[in-house]
Amino acid sequence: MPMDLEALALGAAILGTGGGGDPLIGTLATRHEFERNGPPRLVQVTELDDDALIAPVAMGGAPAIGLEKLLSLPFAETPVRRLEQHLGRRVDAIVPLEIGGVNALLPFMVASRLGLPVVDGDSMGRAFPTLDNTTFKIFGLRACPVIVTNEHADAVIIETGNARAETLSRAVLTELGGACCSVLYPMSGRDAKRTLIPRTVSLALNIGRAILAARASGADPLAALTSELHMFDPEMIARVLFEGKVTDVNRSIAAGFNTGAGTLRGLGAFSGEASFVFQNEFLRIAAAGKTLAIVPDLICFLDSETADPITCETLRYGQRVRVLGISSAPVLRTPAGIAACGPAAFGLTGPFIPLAAA
Amino acid sequence: MPMDLEALALGAAILGTGGGGDPLIGTLATRHEFERNGPPRLVQVTELDDDALIAPVAMGGAPAIGLEKLLSLPFAETPVRRLEQHLGRRVDAIVPLEIGGVNALLPFMVASRLGLPVVDGDSMGRAFPTLDNTTFKIFGLRACPVIVTNEHADAVIIETGNARAETLSRAVLTELGGACCSVLYPMSGRDAKRTLIPRTVSLALNIGRAILAARASGADPLAALTSELHMFDPEMIARVLFEGKVTDVNRSIAAGFNTGAGTLRGLGAFSGEASFVFQNEFLRIAAAGKTLAIVPDLICFLDSETADPITCETLRYGQRVRVLGISSAPVLRTPAGIAACGPAAFGLTGPFIPLAAA
Repeated sequence: MPMDLEALALGAAILGTGGGGDPLIGTLATRHEFERNGPPRLVQVTELDDDALIAPVAMGGAPAIGLEKLLSLPFAETPVRRLEQHLGRRVDAIVPLEIGGVNALLPFMVASRLGLPVVDGDSMGRAFPTLDNTTFKIFGLRACPVIVTNEHADAVIIETGNARAETLSRAVLTELGGACCSVLYPMSGRDAKRTLIPRTVSLALNIGRAILAARASGADPLAALTSELHMFDPEMIARVLFEGKVTDVNRSIAAGFNTGAGTLRGLGAFSGEASFVFQNEFLRIAAAGKTLAIVPDLICFLDSETADPITCETLRYGQRVRVLGISSAPVLRTPAGIAACGPAAFGLTGPFIPLAAA
Repeated sequence: MPMDLEALALGAAILGTGGGGDPLIGTLATRHEFERNGPPRLVQVTELDDDALIAPVAMGGAPAIGLEKLLSLPFAETPVRRLEQHLGRRVDAIVPLEIGGVNALLPFMVASRLGLPVVDGDSMGRAFPTLDNTTFKIFGLRACPVIVTNEHADAVIIETGNARAETLSRAVLTELGGACCSVLYPMSGRDAKRTLIPRTVSLALNIGRAILAARASGADPLAALTSELHMFDPEMIARVLFEGKVTDVNRSIAAGFNTGAGTLRGLGAFSGEASFVFQNEFLRIAAAGKTLAIVPDLICFLDSETADPITCETLRYGQRVRVLGISSAPVLRTPAGIAACGPAAFGLTGPFIPLAAA
């Protein structure tokens, strides 16, 4: 039921782990497309033809810039059209590069415009800032051609090896205005089957629905969320790591990323201070010299009252937050996953410490 | 006789007006290609089919970087091959974007590899630093698709309007290493006929031959050069503006350009100081508060002894130079030409002052 955009947006905001952009504008734009063109069909990766052409789509850049630039609807489909021209064949299905934030909605908007199905899965099981932090990279798929477009219909097609794909794409998208639609890692159905994290669109939908239902019935939204996560994967750990008031946030937009750090002062059962850092998404939270959670595990800041997820770019002094830790998809915790998406990939020192059960 | 590479390189170095890169490596590489594949045919623009596809080629970036990166032969043809893939048709002829420096040779090297003719003309009649300083821009041709490649076979295809083509290409070529081969303003034979400055390859060849012949016979190379320029266009002014010793040069590589300024102290018939500025090419020379020459007119620094042209990036303290002023192609001195290639296009204040006869 991909029509349930409010639930999808809420679930995606939680899996966005502070990044992925605010889904509100994306929700409105996608609803508009659904009203005009109907919703796309959500298909499982197992249904794809091995020789189908699958196009992962995403907005790239700094979410803070995305907040200030309204989404242009025709612009969202441009990279797919350019890919078809470039490869000389039609795209058969759209897939989210990341299930976090607005990038969970964009594929539905594009697919609705183009009359294509959306594959139920993504390459992150969350949001991450670069095209290197993907299962596609982990499994050795080729990122190029990467196609980056902006709302002026500027389009740049990049053909390079994976070593330079990210830096080159980043330079281009910064030059194109800092918040761009892109297609990257175009792949066969065969490759989609072996590399996608399956059913993450369904996961986002289900946790969104569970939270909305809990709110409507007066139940605990956090309990509904963790129960839904356990239903998706019984091994998944999901628990409150800290609760506190935001006492400091420093941030900057550098090289096309929102980067920053901040502190929380404990409330309720939590005393002392916690510190956190982010690069588009929350990367690490620590208290009393101890890492509470670190990438690739998910660190989600939720409003203490409403359980609404808070993005890194909207976090501000005085907010009262609950910080939820959620285990990443297992593939991201393999040695290759840690290399692509672990602390060192973000310039953090120290090892990956998997989220511990309470 | 495009085989006469030494003459072509020398003439192109003079028309390079301090920029366009050192042609030595280009000469060696082109000779190598001629020995393997034979020289390409030099054709006049009038011979082109109206519907032919013409590809202007050029190296872009900071010439000082070009000095340190050896030219990769297969890399030079990559942008033409990418253009053919992108447009889904074959290129019929190559044309130099600029007749100055190494960019007069590159088209011969590429054409030899691809078995294509070279059109006798260019879009500048000299060297200029950006793709906006061209007759193609003056006559309203579309710059895109611009294709930028480097020696790692990275390729970037840019599709944008003319307003952003230069800044976007510059950002890409800086990211690709600062000295890149490119194809830009791909056009029909029809458009080539109405926009090219014709016979500038012949001009470069002829002035190169005249100087070499004068040197061999003990005649005055400068007189041979000016006589050849007058043969090409009787209205063309060419005269010595200043002679002196280089007393200062400041330069930097910024945003993919060599930029800088310097001073000369007069020698012989010239007294006092002259000051000059450059951006890849010499832009202005002034003495005693008076502009001696300014873009788009050509300002050529020649070694006082040998009449060898000196590029902005090799100019150094203590050199004794003669500075030659040469009238630009008439099209560059029209209002549209001044807008695209005059002082304001390079951030210089004050009007264009055409080179005055002595």
